[in-house]
Amino acid sequence: MAVINHLAHTPHHDGSTLYVRNQSPKVGEKLKLKVRIHSSLGKVSQVLIRQSDSGENFLAPKLKKIYTRHGWDWYEGSIEMFNPQVHYRFFIELEDNSSFWLNPLGLHEIDQPDRDDFKINTHPKAPKWATGSVLYQVFPDRFARSTAAAKRELPDWAIPKAWGDEVIGQGPGTSQQLFGGDLKGVEEHLDHLKKLGASILYLTPFFPAGSNHRYDSSSFTQVDPLLGGNKALSDLVKKAHSMGLKVMGDLTANHSGDKHEWFQAAYRNPKAPESEFYYFTNKNSEYDSWWGVKSLPKFNWNSAELKRRFILGKQSVVARWLKAPFELDGWRIDVANMTGKIRGDDFNQEVARTIKNTMDEINPDTFLIGEFTSDAANLVQGDSYQSTMTYANFTRPTWRWLWDPSQELEENQMGPGRKGISGTQFMQLHQSFAGTFPWQLRMHNLNALDTHDTGRFKTFAIQGAQRVAAGLQFTFPGIPMIFAGDEFGLDGYNGENSRTPIPWNNERPFDSSMISTYSTLAALRKKHRALVEGSMRWLYTSKEAMVFIRESKTESILVIAARGKDRKIEFPKDSLSGAENAENLFGNGVLKVVGGKIRYESVALDLQIWRLPSAHR
Amino acid sequence: MAVINHLAHTPHHDGSTLYVRNQSPKVGEKLKLKVRIHSSLGKVSQVLIRQSDSGENFLAPKLKKIYTRHGWDWYEGSIEMFNPQVHYRFFIELEDNSSFWLNPLGLHEIDQPDRDDFKINTHPKAPKWATGSVLYQVFPDRFARSTAAAKRELPDWAIPKAWGDEVIGQGPGTSQQLFGGDLKGVEEHLDHLKKLGASILYLTPFFPAGSNHRYDSSSFTQVDPLLGGNKALSDLVKKAHSMGLKVMGDLTANHSGDKHEWFQAAYRNPKAPESEFYYFTNKNSEYDSWWGVKSLPKFNWNSAELKRRFILGKQSVVARWLKAPFELDGWRIDVANMTGKIRGDDFNQEVARTIKNTMDEINPDTFLIGEFTSDAANLVQGDSYQSTMTYANFTRPTWRWLWDPSQELEENQMGPGRKGISGTQFMQLHQSFAGTFPWQLRMHNLNALDTHDTGRFKTFAIQGAQRVAAGLQFTFPGIPMIFAGDEFGLDGYNGENSRTPIPWNNERPFDSSMISTYSTLAALRKKHRALVEGSMRWLYTSKEAMVFIRESKTESILVIAARGKDRKIEFPKDSLSGAENAENLFGNGVLKVVGGKIRYESVALDLQIWRLPSAHR
Repeated sequence: MAVINHLAHTPHHDGSTLYVRNQSPKVGEKLKLKVRIHSSLGKVSQVLIRQSDSGENFLAPKLKKIYTRHGWDWYEGSIEMFNPQVHYRFFIELEDNSSFWLNPLGLHEIDQPDRDDFKINTHPKAPKWATGSVLYQVFPDRFARSTAAAKRELPDWAIPKAWGDEVIGQGPGTSQQLFGGDLKGVEEHLDHLKKLGASILYLTPFFPAGSNHRYDSSSFTQVDPLLGGNKALSDLVKKAHSMGLKVMGDLTANHSGDKHEWFQAAYRNPKAPESEFYYFTNKNSEYDSWWGVKSLPKFNWNSAELKRRFILGKQSVVARWLKAPFELDGWRIDVANMTGKIRGDDFNQEVARTIKNTMDEINPDTFLIGEFTSDAANLVQGDSYQSTMTYANFTRPTWRWLWDPSQELEENQMGPGRKGISGTQFMQLHQSFAGTFPWQLRMHNLNALDTHDTGRFKTFAIQGAQRVAAGLQFTFPGIPMIFAGDEFGLDGYNGENSRTPIPWNNERPFDSSMISTYSTLAALRKKHRALVEGSMRWLYTSKEAMVFIRESKTESILVIAARGKDRKIEFPKDSLSGAENAENLFGNGVLKVVGGKIRYESVALDLQIWRLPSAHR
Repeated sequence: MAVINHLAHTPHHDGSTLYVRNQSPKVGEKLKLKVRIHSSLGKVSQVLIRQSDSGENFLAPKLKKIYTRHGWDWYEGSIEMFNPQVHYRFFIELEDNSSFWLNPLGLHEIDQPDRDDFKINTHPKAPKWATGSVLYQVFPDRFARSTAAAKRELPDWAIPKAWGDEVIGQGPGTSQQLFGGDLKGVEEHLDHLKKLGASILYLTPFFPAGSNHRYDSSSFTQVDPLLGGNKALSDLVKKAHSMGLKVMGDLTANHSGDKHEWFQAAYRNPKAPESEFYYFTNKNSEYDSWWGVKSLPKFNWNSAELKRRFILGKQSVVARWLKAPFELDGWRIDVANMTGKIRGDDFNQEVARTIKNTMDEINPDTFLIGEFTSDAANLVQGDSYQSTMTYANFTRPTWRWLWDPSQELEENQMGPGRKGISGTQFMQLHQSFAGTFPWQLRMHNLNALDTHDTGRFKTFAIQGAQRVAAGLQFTFPGIPMIFAGDEFGLDGYNGENSRTPIPWNNERPFDSSMISTYSTLAALRKKHRALVEGSMRWLYTSKEAMVFIRESKTESILVIAARGKDRKIEFPKDSLSGAENAENLFGNGVLKVVGGKIRYESVALDLQIWRLPSAHR
């Protein structure tokens, strides 16, 4: 990183509309790009873009200075979409012959690898309803139990539990404990989602299975009768749609359950047509499975018949649930990162694209989310998955920054590495993991504090930190994802333990104080489009605090998040515009504009949001 | 980068045999890896490897400390080759709960993106003869002219030149000036290659064409009669082989010339079978070409017939020249980075793999080099191309470091960016661009000071710097590549101008003083295998100097390269072993071991090489 006088004066570009007006370029089109360079960098002699063209890189003609505002010179130039995907970065030369490269990681004196370039592509945008959405995750067995649930006969594997029972987090019974939540129960609580400000209901699997999590489906052709069967799903979706909510399902394209009808047909029966659906050996008595878990046999995507039945065309499983009477609005694909990959086989991209094509055939207004557990920036580009998790660029940095050093839980929920990182390190993690996603992906990736696969954020964080973390969820680029129960202050020391039944009727202790925080933040996000599509620019970071601004044509939203007290939050007045007229939207803090500086003194666990009039109209 | 007390104490791993004994892993095999950690980092509580498995990443069990030498603790663990390509990095935790990630870019406090991981794969190794080779590049029209050349009739396009004429570098005549070098001329000077220590003769295209560079071939089925025809090639290869030299050709798989028989058959003739070989429009009167240069029409690899004729199987062009009577030892593929890519088409990897498969069918002991002009680390893995250029990690950093600020040539030979960078920045460039190649690739990539596509290094560098630069060529991981004429001190302000006829008979001024430097360095490299397969570890860098060590089981080679005086070159004695018994191999410098430090005072343009007994037996 070059020496610049203040972080807030770093030249900036990202793929947002403020810098790239045309968000739907086509192959062959020229695309205008802007970059802003503050005068404090020095006297600029030229600004160029280095872009890719069919595997080669070249320097596009000089950018033109189009205007100067608040000390910032705005330059405009263009790239050409020679291919469906183009990568690029900026070259800034000063009159003293020094020069800099600007890429998503920041400003650099020396050449940078192509892998760190900005990326843009011509792939179709995600559905409009996904942009600006708030996703609410429901684990069906644990969300709500309708009166009908009591009458259902339980399968042999199930260990029946009362709604208020403790959740087994590990060891025997973990996957068998059945609390009996069902889809009617979900339907009965859709008003809760509305109240919270959620707009997408995402259900983890609803197919029949041999466990409470149902990632080991025994069939893809019906809804688990334990959840109310097919009719419960179509009723739920109808009701949700009538309330303006979208509903997404969850598919395992990596594996099925070992009780799946396809697997059962082929196990120890090499002559079955389904024999080719799995990686069988030894007369179909042995087989590959997800991480060696024998109940989750891995699909073999060499099979054309598997593709036909599961993912390809109007009669496939993927298609069936998007059509009437179900009309799901999209799929989340489980273990998308591993799907179709084993030894030398790699059908990963092919499976993903086939799923998306089939979805588009039924209803192009559907949304496809792929589960990727770590750095996915070079894999998820929008031609198949339109969204993925942000564990690496959001969830884990948030945990690491807001970690409670005094709690004594031994845990590995966020992987190895430093806890209690600084705000500056948070920024670095975010830049290096988020910046190389195309902007359209960044805008649709899922910012979760936790999921059914992790412990609860609250359990491991400084007391009271969830408010700050939720603030980041709703103000970072991406779709806020709330795991049901976060708003009730539920605890969980790991993924299994955090699948806690929601205490609708005080079945367990809870703290519903976060509900209003979520609904306030969701309302802000709905009102202020800059929080959805605005550029993301960092202004200040320290050990205890982070300051960034989301800027759009119409307004700017300034965010200050602090872990501890920082009495020296300060950034130059000319690093942004409109600070004198800042309107506090959250936190009631007072922004001081003194001389050439903007100042704020944070308290511990502070979250402040201001609206600033934009200079970019 | 974490704060460590000295660069030379940075924990280290690379893919070399010292750290990865099995250089030919198979899918499914466990592979032992080592990493060294100096005690100055702190008390280590655990060391883990994070590796990929079919799209997911996980932490392999703890590494074991296997021995301690010279303050270094050596840890050993293993990864499993779940897939043909695996990426990995190390996690080091200290007893104070601080932790670090180690990847090819160095040591880091916070999580790093997967794209920066170490990479290893199961792809077949390059031929043994390529490992440890020295490549000599000949541009046939400019190397040597046999007596037969005078008698040949020139084509219409040619502008005949005398051997001593000035080379036109730009404008009219650039591609038409014909100096008349031929293959017999090359054959007559093979002893020069031997003298220099070269082991591979690489010829730029020898097919008939409409220019002196012959990248616009008019046929792939015969050697240009101007070069002596087919017999001249088979004679040359026979002679070379008898002298222990290998010979490689140059193919354009991206385009042909517009005079090519295939193009001629199809131009304005949509019914021709060759019509599908190119991207024709408008009744075959218009077509796509390389960077819009109409004489270089781009191949359309959608065509199965093109594949069959050109690259697929024993009757293809690729095969023909590897068989008797020609028996070339391999191909360099021109514009490999762009081949098969245009708009939405991407046959790049397919074409590359087909070429390699065809080569293996004829002779598995052949070598395939792909031309990539910038960051190729994520594209060139060894399953097709086994080697590529190191413009980004070697050539350009070398130019930038040894740049002569007083020369006034306006040039863009090395792309935009800072000139006169520091030695520290050189190291950073090398690490970020070279480190993510699998080690087998790093070992076989081509370290050139210049090529027929660039100006001459000497022309732009500080006077006398070529000796230092050549020292880096022969001591960095990779194959030294000498562009014919470098050893004669020839000048060239751009790629065209640097294609200077070799002044065998004093036809132009020259300085042959580098010949002995190259032959000395080549002899050192031949004798000291650590310079070929030894690990690459940095010990010291400053503005003016760089110190690194190549370490193998049997010996270590210490290299100091300095641009200017640096009287403070210093690194801890316990950062390496054997310094007391250092034997100077080049430069006659004196290494001082004083107290706990190793010291050296460099003069300007210093190049020192020492052999140290190894502690790794």
